[in-house]
Amino acid sequence: MPSSYDQLVAQLKRAHTLGTVADLLGWDEQVHLPPDSADVRAMQHAVMAQTQHVAAADPFIGQLLGELEANEPCSAVAPTPADQAVVLRHARRDYDRATKLPADFVAEKAAHSSRAFHAWADAKQRADFSTYAPFLEKHLALARREAELLGWGDRPYDYAIDRHDPGLTAASITALFTELKRGLLPLVTAIRASKVQADPHLFRAFPVESQRVFLREVTERLGFNYRRGRIDVSLHPFCSGTGADIRMTTRFDVDNPLDSLFSSIHETGHGMYEQGLPLAHLGTALGQAVGMAVHESQSRLWENQVARGRAFWRFFEPRLRALFPAQLAAISSDALYLAVNAVEPTLIRVDADEVHYNLHILLRFELEQQLFSGALVVRDLPAAWNALCAEMLGQTPKTDREGVLQDVHWSSGGFGYFPSYCLGNMMAAQLWSAVRRALPGLEEDFARGDFSPLLGWLRDNIHAHGRRFDTLELVRRVTGAELSPQPLLAYLRERYGGLYLK
Amino acid sequence: MPSSYDQLVAQLKRAHTLGTVADLLGWDEQVHLPPDSADVRAMQHAVMAQTQHVAAADPFIGQLLGELEANEPCSAVAPTPADQAVVLRHARRDYDRATKLPADFVAEKAAHSSRAFHAWADAKQRADFSTYAPFLEKHLALARREAELLGWGDRPYDYAIDRHDPGLTAASITALFTELKRGLLPLVTAIRASKVQADPHLFRAFPVESQRVFLREVTERLGFNYRRGRIDVSLHPFCSGTGADIRMTTRFDVDNPLDSLFSSIHETGHGMYEQGLPLAHLGTALGQAVGMAVHESQSRLWENQVARGRAFWRFFEPRLRALFPAQLAAISSDALYLAVNAVEPTLIRVDADEVHYNLHILLRFELEQQLFSGALVVRDLPAAWNALCAEMLGQTPKTDREGVLQDVHWSSGGFGYFPSYCLGNMMAAQLWSAVRRALPGLEEDFARGDFSPLLGWLRDNIHAHGRRFDTLELVRRVTGAELSPQPLLAYLRERYGGLYLK
Repeated sequence: MPSSYDQLVAQLKRAHTLGTVADLLGWDEQVHLPPDSADVRAMQHAVMAQTQHVAAADPFIGQLLGELEANEPCSAVAPTPADQAVVLRHARRDYDRATKLPADFVAEKAAHSSRAFHAWADAKQRADFSTYAPFLEKHLALARREAELLGWGDRPYDYAIDRHDPGLTAASITALFTELKRGLLPLVTAIRASKVQADPHLFRAFPVESQRVFLREVTERLGFNYRRGRIDVSLHPFCSGTGADIRMTTRFDVDNPLDSLFSSIHETGHGMYEQGLPLAHLGTALGQAVGMAVHESQSRLWENQVARGRAFWRFFEPRLRALFPAQLAAISSDALYLAVNAVEPTLIRVDADEVHYNLHILLRFELEQQLFSGALVVRDLPAAWNALCAEMLGQTPKTDREGVLQDVHWSSGGFGYFPSYCLGNMMAAQLWSAVRRALPGLEEDFARGDFSPLLGWLRDNIHAHGRRFDTLELVRRVTGAELSPQPLLAYLRERYGGLYLK
Repeated sequence: MPSSYDQLVAQLKRAHTLGTVADLLGWDEQVHLPPDSADVRAMQHAVMAQTQHVAAADPFIGQLLGELEANEPCSAVAPTPADQAVVLRHARRDYDRATKLPADFVAEKAAHSSRAFHAWADAKQRADFSTYAPFLEKHLALARREAELLGWGDRPYDYAIDRHDPGLTAASITALFTELKRGLLPLVTAIRASKVQADPHLFRAFPVESQRVFLREVTERLGFNYRRGRIDVSLHPFCSGTGADIRMTTRFDVDNPLDSLFSSIHETGHGMYEQGLPLAHLGTALGQAVGMAVHESQSRLWENQVARGRAFWRFFEPRLRALFPAQLAAISSDALYLAVNAVEPTLIRVDADEVHYNLHILLRFELEQQLFSGALVVRDLPAAWNALCAEMLGQTPKTDREGVLQDVHWSSGGFGYFPSYCLGNMMAAQLWSAVRRALPGLEEDFARGDFSPLLGWLRDNIHAHGRRFDTLELVRRVTGAELSPQPLLAYLRERYGGLYLK
């Protein structure tokens, strides 16, 4: 007879497995779904969401939790009592969340997300926000209702944030973002005034097949395990699945090889985090990512601190030149490195450079707060978006395709997610500072093509812990300091000051 | 308040939708799964099988069936009482089947199927039956146990047949196959003695990309709806999904363009049958295929009677020559048509020509009967396979890769499926004879590139009926005669006699 704890773990793993099946439906939807099959996919999502909900809210889980919470954690050798306590704490939170959401609500939200995704893709293609607006309005109503059902009715936006990064709030993020903005704006202004400029038309006619080869070599050498994952093509790059089977996507543009390269490295960072979580604990908090900010810290660290650095290019530039000899013949190493670190305002978040990127997030964080407070209604969103663009980026979108319709997130009701990107940037820089202190020879390893010391350090200090520590606690433990925008500002001043403000 | 009947349909559709999700897992497994992720896929299959089983065995279905069976079918306008009776009859059979199979058994079989598939693929690659044998033995044990649980303990092989083609038995199939063999062997002997021979090395260096273009044009013109389906690449071609989202696969060989073309047309026949079933009835017997023999009749009719005929090539030959001008320059129209209808014994079922194909099935049918009766044990299977090959095909496999390991079917426990191919061939020829009587201008339409009259006739006479009629009854209604091997023999004598026995 298995122990109550083991029975609980089996139940959690079962619910988790249903979630991975639903994830695969989502991946397939964006990579492979035939154009007229959205209706059946919506039905599949609805049925799976309902099924997952029934599994997550199974009264047997409640009974087991009750038994296990009533006693001291038992003395099983593996995992330790402390680990069991972590699993129980998160299982309790998830169970309470599941039992407070009616199955009908869950099915309705899943079906709406599928429809809204297709409405967004269609509206974006036609650059017409109006047809998508009712879907977004319904998503906001669903988000408010969900917060209410879970006892956060007075703070629906904090609930949305907490779902992605437990422990963080709109207020705590505002404090961090305000400090960041204060330090960032002078740097942005100085770089915009610089005479150094990357050439935006440097790259022409890079065949997709060779881009694919380079991208594969890079991501494999960084440490992605392709025996438990793959990369395909979709409209918007993403990473889904678990460490047992990671599904990443990218997209290709023959005149912009850096786009697919850096988006792939970004998703590889996400993928390697999942692959580093303990496989045996998949489905419990010990095998789960801390939250989206930590996730983004992993993708950003590899994408920016590592892959935009001199040491990375010392190793990979010769290989890139071997694959594209004609295309790169007239481009010097310095010009290539400047292109990798091009700073130029753009209206598109995913195209933004590291210096401007955070401004795109501050904009979205501001608008999400206003939408949730009621200060802004959906029909006025495009105008508000455009006004903030003009103020922060010095540009105004010509159509909603380059404006409010550019991101996929809201089409699945993913409010409160955007701040994670900026929090992740802060954390990445703070981890980078810590790992360079801990491993002084790190960049010499990169220059030799060896990225395993960094991956090993991340495995030991971040990945192996699963969800043992919350975001802010993890940062404190690994870096010895509170999460702060100062390491990010220092890093940006060092890298971009060196290139643009000489 | 929805009626009992409508509630039943909602329950059936829910269970069906879970099945379509499980199908997608199976498709992804053979098309996209990373090499080390088989473990997590097995777990996903097990959880989904258990979930499907719970849905199919929901006592609420039993309650609704009980209510509906106790009363005269109610007089709702759509569907008609007769249609409701069809739905109820099949729902009752499926419910009884589901409630007699314990959930543990279902999960065990699903997990074993996933492991056995990978064991088969590995054994086939290494041409070593011995590592796969224990998986096959366990599948046989599971098949016997399943028959026993469902009250077929004394006739486990008839149960396996009935699962694919309700109403047929080993005895009734034996009668048809014996008559077929008697007519077929003289034809085979005569063609083998013919001086006419297709050149087996006619095709060289047909680039995959152009093969893909041709295949797409052909299958689209035959009538496959790519807005609700797609085609990808896998080790063994197959067709899965429903009419709402069909997933076909093929494979490419630069020196054998006819292999991918004809396997794609075959799968297109399956796909168009599913696409022709009434979408509104998906999940009930009114939107379901009759069985595998009828399914095969659709794939074979398009692959053989249509796509190996003169009229088809009158339209498509110019296009093929436009795509491959150099490769076809020295090949005459007659040589091309002979290659399309090449008759040559081969050890590989899926490479077999129409004349020999049925012998491959008779071989498998014989071995399956012996395995189930106990006359043959799994460890002796390769030797028995090879002996029958020598007798029927005049060749002996050099390794098990070309012998007993060539087919995927048994790796998922798919016993009793092979006879459907041959029954499908008989039915295709019988339908072909009927439709040529009904639509005398049919082949002139083909020569003009118009295949819609045939698809329309199949839609009206076969597809639209769903599962209203059993296999033998459907044949009787559509062709006015009992299912017989004589139309197949007449068709083979006409087509191949004309080419080889002039």
